[in-house]
Amino acid sequence: MAKFELTRELIDLIRELIEQNNVAQLTEILLELHPADIAEIYEELSVDEAKFLYFLLDDDTAAEVLINLEEDDRQNFLKSLPSEEIARRFIDNLDTDDAADIISEMDEERQKEVLSFIDDTEVADDIADLLSYEEDTAGSLMAKELIKVRESWNIITCLRSMRRQVEEVDEVYFVYVVDDKDILKGTISLKRMLLASSENRVRELYNPDVISVNANTHSEEVANIMGKYDLVVLPVVDDNGKLLGRITIDDVVDYIREEAEKDYQLASGITGDVEISDSVWRHTRVRVPWLMIGMMGGLLGSRVISAFEGNIARFPEVAFFMPLIGAMGGNVGIQSSAIIVQSIASGNLGFETNWRKLGKEVSIALLNASALSVIAFIYNMIVGSSYALTFTVTSALFSVVLFASLLGTFLPLLLNKFKVNPAVATGPFITTLNDIVGMFLYLILSVYFFNLFM
Amino acid sequence: MAKFELTRELIDLIRELIEQNNVAQLTEILLELHPADIAEIYEELSVDEAKFLYFLLDDDTAAEVLINLEEDDRQNFLKSLPSEEIARRFIDNLDTDDAADIISEMDEERQKEVLSFIDDTEVADDIADLLSYEEDTAGSLMAKELIKVRESWNIITCLRSMRRQVEEVDEVYFVYVVDDKDILKGTISLKRMLLASSENRVRELYNPDVISVNANTHSEEVANIMGKYDLVVLPVVDDNGKLLGRITIDDVVDYIREEAEKDYQLASGITGDVEISDSVWRHTRVRVPWLMIGMMGGLLGSRVISAFEGNIARFPEVAFFMPLIGAMGGNVGIQSSAIIVQSIASGNLGFETNWRKLGKEVSIALLNASALSVIAFIYNMIVGSSYALTFTVTSALFSVVLFASLLGTFLPLLLNKFKVNPAVATGPFITTLNDIVGMFLYLILSVYFFNLFM
Repeated sequence: MAKFELTRELIDLIRELIEQNNVAQLTEILLELHPADIAEIYEELSVDEAKFLYFLLDDDTAAEVLINLEEDDRQNFLKSLPSEEIARRFIDNLDTDDAADIISEMDEERQKEVLSFIDDTEVADDIADLLSYEEDTAGSLMAKELIKVRESWNIITCLRSMRRQVEEVDEVYFVYVVDDKDILKGTISLKRMLLASSENRVRELYNPDVISVNANTHSEEVANIMGKYDLVVLPVVDDNGKLLGRITIDDVVDYIREEAEKDYQLASGITGDVEISDSVWRHTRVRVPWLMIGMMGGLLGSRVISAFEGNIARFPEVAFFMPLIGAMGGNVGIQSSAIIVQSIASGNLGFETNWRKLGKEVSIALLNASALSVIAFIYNMIVGSSYALTFTVTSALFSVVLFASLLGTFLPLLLNKFKVNPAVATGPFITTLNDIVGMFLYLILSVYFFNLFM
Repeated sequence: MAKFELTRELIDLIRELIEQNNVAQLTEILLELHPADIAEIYEELSVDEAKFLYFLLDDDTAAEVLINLEEDDRQNFLKSLPSEEIARRFIDNLDTDDAADIISEMDEERQKEVLSFIDDTEVADDIADLLSYEEDTAGSLMAKELIKVRESWNIITCLRSMRRQVEEVDEVYFVYVVDDKDILKGTISLKRMLLASSENRVRELYNPDVISVNANTHSEEVANIMGKYDLVVLPVVDDNGKLLGRITIDDVVDYIREEAEKDYQLASGITGDVEISDSVWRHTRVRVPWLMIGMMGGLLGSRVISAFEGNIARFPEVAFFMPLIGAMGGNVGIQSSAIIVQSIASGNLGFETNWRKLGKEVSIALLNASALSVIAFIYNMIVGSSYALTFTVTSALFSVVLFASLLGTFLPLLLNKFKVNPAVATGPFITTLNDIVGMFLYLILSVYFFNLFM
């Protein structure tokens, strides 16, 4: 398969062919492409143009294209189709997990309507069941399609049953072994089956060391378990150990990427997914909210500083180091919170007690604060600042670094305890807060030292 | 398998048992655990304690534990073992990709020594070949183990050959189809084989639409391709299309996680992996470098401001909004650069020309700059600032936001062009630069407007 590259020329050509109603040539182009590539083309077209292409695709490809679209584009596209068409052309041709994902993006009424048009009641039930799990749980990530064999079967019976079952499943990674009550007992690899003789019973061959998760396990834990144990597929069970479905690594990769992007966006003060190619309006919408918070913080800061106007008028050199203090508070705060956020995300909080963590964080903060203050002190001595300014800057830097370290460490831990994404503490929020506190500390100290020395 | 949790109690127990030389009970504990869990325990122990455990493990488990260790811990541990032992106990029991990863962490002399102790010359050659690829390429990610069949074979011959081949391979995901010159022709799924009759030839059954990558493809592109096309395994070929090896998704997941963490760390001003549980010294070492840069920036900024001392002394209210200007420049710059860095990482730079990108970014910047300036203007009017201050703040905010947007957008693009990780532009570097430039603009404008109005 040739490597696909989305070019302006290709889009222009497709647009032109749609305009000319040139079905033959369009079909030829589409046949050469992977559904994921067609999805990229869809995203550059209008809904009407995309619909024109959609009628040229077979059902399987159309369904694959749909799940490869970005959520926004998919919603726009589906809005233009009747519920019956969605059920027949898409849902019947998708794995249950993808079908459930797509239906979950619709409003409740539409969901019911689409589900009512699914011919296979078993599939409809499976999807309805998947929709019942909370977002970001193993249940919401899993698919119902899997291959299972009973421990009492022999290899011949297994292979016969598997031939029937594989028709429903795209790829066979693992065969699950269950007992008569569908309780998960273990796995049997295809390799094992290939090497076994046909009279062997599953009971003698299967591997009982299977790692599984409960359907209510959080997706983050699912990702960590699959990563740690290098799993490609992970079975999901209910509270009684009954096999419910399986999670494949591709869904978890998507989850890992999304979470990493979300944390990165929060740290950068962006409130949603945005790419260079998105509209000016979208760019503005994801950027403005945090800028407003920064703005409010800055204006509040200006009130704090104005309370010290007299002191600044008498000793204007106090203003020289205001940006330094603000910036260092921000830098230190972001560093501390980022370390905590990463440790939380990777499940590596460690088992130190909170008191030990506090003790260590205080040591690190004291070390950094001392080092930076010494530099500030030496610098001020070299450039010949007054004693008042030197002591103000040195002591303010020390206090700000100490404060920002501790706030940056404990705010995310606190947010995490209250089930708020700790990454919100890494962005403009913590910088702004540190800015205001830092400025206040600095100016208070300047009043003290300038009164002392001058 | 019971869910494993690393606790202080477990570590204390294991330490005690090691002290007591209680091999029986230790073996019992270790037998219950997954190698990835044992690796977590290793990381809490001293090298001598870890070595004690290591002698209790069978070769396969010992090798698995080794690849699950963090790089630092692994290096420390391997240093204490003779090369022959490493080759015999570890390398022979690992997949070629894992073996190559571990050997690549050693110095060149040790590498040669370890390779010379590998009994199977084919394996030694495979590993030496893998070591020859540059870091962060498909070649460095791939493993040599795979199952391939010739297109001319029938299913019987395939199964016979596969039985031999599977003994070398842990899991069978795909069977590759090659011609007589080992050129990759396609894949045949196990499902397809299960459904076929035994006389069918591979030629009639295989799927020629196989996505592959050249061994020199960058890992980031490998990750994007596997993500986009939802691949669990990706074959690697040389320039002639000859099948060299395959990359499995677990290695790519590790890569994705590491890259996301690296970008996140760069954006937060941390220079390396660090977790809460790491030592105070390690924490200081990864934090201090960027803090120094922030510090230099702040000190340079203080020189810039001191040039305007006279103006600040006459009009101290100029100082009120200095932190606001600095913070907004930083916030806007980080936002802009983060969007570019994410777009570059996900391969979604789009096909707009640079001029179109510039045009759009200018529109976004103008929109944000206008909105924020209007707020600053209204605020200053409400609190009754002088005209001079109002115009200074409004126009400085406008210029700083515009400048920071454009710098934040084009600096990462420029770095990327020169093959420098663009994420370095998202951290303290861009904030510091924007701080200094912003302060300069603000103070220049204050001189102008205060001369105009006062």
